[in-house]
Amino acid sequence: MKKFQAEIDVMPKKEILDPQGKAVTGSMKNLGLAEIQNVRIGKHISLEIEAESTETAHNKVEQACKSLLANLIMESYSFELHEV
Amino acid sequence: MKKFQAEIDVMPKKEILDPQGKAVTGSMKNLGLAEIQNVRIGKHISLEIEAESTETAHNKVEQACKSLLANLIMESYSFELHEV
Repeated sequence: MKKFQAEIDVMPKKEILDPQGKAVTGSMKNLGLAEIQNVRIGKHISLEIEAESTETAHNKVEQACKSLLANLIMESYSFELHEV
Repeated sequence: MKKFQAEIDVMPKKEILDPQGKAVTGSMKNLGLAEIQNVRIGKHISLEIEAESTETAHNKVEQACKSLLANLIMESYSFELHEV
């Protein structure tokens, strides 16, 4: 069995309003950081997974994202896997 | 002025308990994904920034992380910048 580390980003879809991001964009201005625009806030998830192969690990992480980590109606996900 | 995209990860520090991650690790088992361990959940933030140079953009993003995006007592951050 090999051990992999997955780094997953779950972000609100582009066409979905992100009120938390909007609020942070506004706060940037108050902090003197008006150059910062279009803040969007999502989740970052790191996890460890044991699997026979990279392909199996990839499939398991896909399954975890689809069934638990991301709400596919409002969010999209992407991830990277590396062996540890 | 150049435009940069920053991709920031804000994660709970290793020595800090992550109850949300613990709960998700438990749920993985119920979903038949017991190979998945040590889930930790943080934030992923994407933003756009205008700056004269990569160095200026880097400093501004550092400042944003330190003053607003991360709580340095409990969280650590890392980011990547690329010109768009």
